[in-house]
Amino acid sequence: MINRPRIFSLDDTQQSVLNEHGFHGQDILSVNQFTPASLDYIFDVAEEMRAMVGRKGGADLLQGRVLSCLFYEPSTRTSASFIAAMERLGGSVIPITQGVQFSSVSKGETLHDTIRTLEQYSDVIVLRHPEKGAAAIAAAAADIPVINAGDGAGEHPTQALLDLFTIREELGRLDGLHIAMVGDLRYGRTVHSLTQLLTGYDVQLSFVSPEILRLPLDYMNQVRDAGKTVRETYSVADVIASADVLYVTRVQKERFTDLAQYEEVKDFYRITPELMDRAKPNAIVMHPLPRVNEIDVRVDTDPRAAYFRQVKNGMYIRMALLAAVLGKA
Amino acid sequence: MINRPRIFSLDDTQQSVLNEHGFHGQDILSVNQFTPASLDYIFDVAEEMRAMVGRKGGADLLQGRVLSCLFYEPSTRTSASFIAAMERLGGSVIPITQGVQFSSVSKGETLHDTIRTLEQYSDVIVLRHPEKGAAAIAAAAADIPVINAGDGAGEHPTQALLDLFTIREELGRLDGLHIAMVGDLRYGRTVHSLTQLLTGYDVQLSFVSPEILRLPLDYMNQVRDAGKTVRETYSVADVIASADVLYVTRVQKERFTDLAQYEEVKDFYRITPELMDRAKPNAIVMHPLPRVNEIDVRVDTDPRAAYFRQVKNGMYIRMALLAAVLGKA
Amino acid sequence: MINRPRIFSLDDTQQSVLNEHGFHGQDILSVNQFTPASLDYIFDVAEEMRAMVGRKGGADLLQGRVLSCLFYEPSTRTSASFIAAMERLGGSVIPITQGVQFSSVSKGETLHDTIRTLEQYSDVIVLRHPEKGAAAIAAAAADIPVINAGDGAGEHPTQALLDLFTIREELGRLDGLHIAMVGDLRYGRTVHSLTQLLTGYDVQLSFVSPEILRLPLDYMNQVRDAGKTVRETYSVADVIASADVLYVTRVQKERFTDLAQYEEVKDFYRITPELMDRAKPNAIVMHPLPRVNEIDVRVDTDPRAAYFRQVKNGMYIRMALLAAVLGKA
Repeated sequence: MINRPRIFSLDDTQQSVLNEHGFHGQDILSVNQFTPASLDYIFDVAEEMRAMVGRKGGADLLQGRVLSCLFYEPSTRTSASFIAAMERLGGSVIPITQGVQFSSVSKGETLHDTIRTLEQYSDVIVLRHPEKGAAAIAAAAADIPVINAGDGAGEHPTQALLDLFTIREELGRLDGLHIAMVGDLRYGRTVHSLTQLLTGYDVQLSFVSPEILRLPLDYMNQVRDAGKTVRETYSVADVIASADVLYVTRVQKERFTDLAQYEEVKDFYRITPELMDRAKPNAIVMHPLPRVNEIDVRVDTDPRAAYFRQVKNGMYIRMALLAAVLGKA
Repeated sequence: MINRPRIFSLDDTQQSVLNEHGFHGQDILSVNQFTPASLDYIFDVAEEMRAMVGRKGGADLLQGRVLSCLFYEPSTRTSASFIAAMERLGGSVIPITQGVQFSSVSKGETLHDTIRTLEQYSDVIVLRHPEKGAAAIAAAAADIPVINAGDGAGEHPTQALLDLFTIREELGRLDGLHIAMVGDLRYGRTVHSLTQLLTGYDVQLSFVSPEILRLPLDYMNQVRDAGKTVRETYSVADVIASADVLYVTRVQKERFTDLAQYEEVKDFYRITPELMDRAKPNAIVMHPLPRVNEIDVRVDTDPRAAYFRQVKNGMYIRMALLAAVLGKA
Repeated sequence: MINRPRIFSLDDTQQSVLNEHGFHGQDILSVNQFTPASLDYIFDVAEEMRAMVGRKGGADLLQGRVLSCLFYEPSTRTSASFIAAMERLGGSVIPITQGVQFSSVSKGETLHDTIRTLEQYSDVIVLRHPEKGAAAIAAAAADIPVINAGDGAGEHPTQALLDLFTIREELGRLDGLHIAMVGDLRYGRTVHSLTQLLTGYDVQLSFVSPEILRLPLDYMNQVRDAGKTVRETYSVADVIASADVLYVTRVQKERFTDLAQYEEVKDFYRITPELMDRAKPNAIVMHPLPRVNEIDVRVDTDPRAAYFRQVKNGMYIRMALLAAVLGKA
C-alpha cells in the first residue's frame, strides 16, 4: 500500500500510473474489462475516497467537470450514489433521472443522438437503460466516457465492483474465502457479475437456490473452468456454518408457477437471527438491496450485517471510477 | 445582538455556543422541540444568513456536505427552498423530488431502508411524506439529522419557524402583538404549528373562520392553558382594525357540504385593498402560499403584504437549520 | 477582438462596457431585443466561454448565484444546456424540470405567484412554458432576470442566438452568405426566429418547403422589407450547389391531410451523403434537433455536419447570457 497513487495530489509519476491502468477516457461497460490488478487499483483509490470523505466530506478534484446522469428507468439508489459521488468530488451533475421518456425520446430521437447531444454539455455520462446493449451503443456514440449503470438483462458493473470491494474491505482479503450466493441465482444480475469477478480469485463458491432459480449453466461452467470448488444446495442451512460471505437476493413469489412449491421452500433462503447464531463470528451478510423480507430486520443490528456499509462502498467505488475515467482523475 | 455567534467564522467559543443549543446532529421534527431561547438562536443565525446572501449570494460553510432531498409527494416551494438553502451554503443536493414512488419504494422497500440507504450518501436528509409519523420513523432509522419538511397531517416545523421569524423580522418583536389567524383553522397545519409556537410569547390571538373550520379544541385549550387572550369570530372585519398580523389561509369550497353556506361566508375571509384601508399602518398580511383568491392580487403592492418576503425568510431559516444540525454549522 | 471585454476578470472599464450593452438585470424574452452590436457582444463572450471551458472546464464567476430552471413541459436538451451552463460558471441550479403540474400549479397557483416565489430563492429564472406570452408574464412578475427558454408558439430566443452564433463560428462571418431554410417553415419556431435575426445581416435567403409548410407571409414580408434576396422552392436540390448553410427541420407526416402528397415530396427535404456530394466544400448542415430521418445518419461523419457542434454552442451562448444578465457577468 505504501506506493499506491495518492489521487488527491497527483504528480506526473502518479498520473502515469493512473494512465497505465488505462482508465483515463475509457468507458466502464462490463466486469470483463477489469483485471485483478486494475480492480486492486480502483479499490485502492476507493479507499482513499473513503478516507477523504471521512476527513472533510469532499474534495475539489473534479471541479468544473459535469456528469450527465441519464436514467431511462428510475433507480433512486444508483442515481443518488452517482450524484453524491460526483458532488463529493467537487463536480456538477445534470440530473436526467425522470421522464426521459416524455422528452426528446418521445419525439423519436435515437439513443445515439441523445448521447451525442449530452456529451456536448458534459465530461462523462452515466447511463441506466432497460435494454441490454444500450450502454455499448451509448459508448460507441460518445467521445467522452460512458459508465454503464445497468442495461436491462445486460450488466451493472459498478454494482459488481462495489460488491467485491465490500468483501475485501470487510474481510481484508478475497483469496481463501467461502462465498455463498443465496436466493434467485437465475435472474439475479448482481449474482452473475459478482460470480464472474470472483473467478479471478482463489475462492470456494456455494450456490443456494430453489431448483427453478439455479445459476444458469454458462455461469456455472465459467466457474468450473476456472477451477473453483463449487457446491450447489437448496438450503442456506447447508452452508451457514462455513460461509464467510452470504450474498443474499430475493426469491420472488412471481417466479413460481406452483405457489405451493414457493411456500414450501421460501424459508430456506431467509436470513434470521436464529440462522446467524450458527454463522461464523466474522461472516458477513450482503444484499444488493432493496430487501423485502429475505433478511429479517432484526439482523440489521448484527455487526455482521454488511448491507448498508455495502451501500456506502458503492459511493466510494463510483467516486474512484469517475476520478479514474476523467483522468486525474 | 452584540455577542451573538457569527456563524461564518466560528471560533471555539462560538462553536460551543452553537453546541449548547443542542442542534448539532439533531433531527428537526416538531415545533415542540424548540424553546424561545433556541428559536432566538436560530432566528439570529437566519438574520446572519440574510446579511450574507445580500452581501455575496452564498458561502462555503457546507462545502463537501450533501443533502438528500427526499420528497414522496411534490412540493415545489418547499423543495426549492431547501435546495437553494443548501446550495447557497456551498453544499450539494441529491434531489429526489419526483417519482420516488416508481423506484425502490415500488419494489417494496420500507421507508426505514430507504433512509438507511440515503444516509450512506449524505450528511443530512430532508423528508416530505404524506403520512403522519413518517419523519419520526426516518429519524429513528438514520444516524444523520433528519429534517421534517411535512409529514401529512403531522407537522411542518420549518414552515412554522419561518412564519414566526417573519413576524419578528417585520414587526421587530413578538411580545405585545395581536395576531389574527384567518380562514381554515381546522385543517390548516401551518396555523396549528404557528399557534403552538406563539403560546410561548405574550401575544393576543384571534381566530377568524367559518363555524365548520374553527380551530380544533385541543389547540384552543393549549392557547387558553397558556393564559393567552383569545377571541373567535366569523369575519375578518371584526379584527382588521386592531390586528398586527393577519395570517391568512384558504377556505376551500370542498370543505362545505352546503355550498350555499360557502357562498354566504366566503367573502368574510378575503383580503382586499378596501379591507386593508381599515388595517393598522404597520400591520402585515401573511400567507403560507399557494394563494388562490383569498388575497386579492391588488394587495400585493401594499407594503404590508409580507407573504413573498415570508417565502424568502423560509430560505434563511432553512439555511440556519441546515448549518445548525451540521454543527458549524 | 483585441479590446473585447475579458469576462473572467472584469475591471471597471470592462464592467461598464458590459453594462452599456444593457444586459445586467435584463430579461431575455425575444430576438427582437437584440441589435447586431449586442449580438456581437454576446457572441464574443460566448467565444470566451468556449475558450475557458476548453482550458479548465469551468469557472467560479457565478459562485453563490442560483438559477431556478422552471420547465412546465419537458425539454431535456434545453434544460440540460442551461443547467450545464450555470454549473460550469460555478453557480447552482434548482431543477424544476418535472412534475411542476403536480405541485403548486395543481393547487391553483398562478404563474405570477410561482415566479414571485422562486425569485425569493434565486438570482435568475429560466422558464419553459407551453403557452405563448408566458415568458412576458413571468418577466413582469419578477424583479430578477427571466430567460425565455421557449413559450409555446411564442419565441425561443436562446435557440435563435445559438443558431446565428453557430453560423458565425463555422463560417467566420454572417455577411455575404446564402442561407437555405429547409423543411417545415410554417410551424418551425426556430426558423422564424433565426430568419428575423438574419434580416439584420447582408445575406441571401432561400426557403425550401412543401407548399403547405411555406414560410408565413408576415415573416416573408419582414425579409423582403429588409431588402434581402429571397427565393422559395420545393426541393433542396435547387439550392444545394450554392447554399453556405442548410438549416434543416423536420417535415412531419402529421401535417399532411393527403398522405400520398407527403410520400411524393418527403425526399425533397432529406439530407443524404449523395446530396452532400453536390454541396459546397465549406457549406454546413444545421438542425435544431431532435432529428428523426430528415438527415441521414451517414451525414454525421461529414465534417460539414455542424448540428452537434451547434448543440455545444448552445451551452456557450447560455453561459454568456447568464453571465450578462447577472451583471459581471
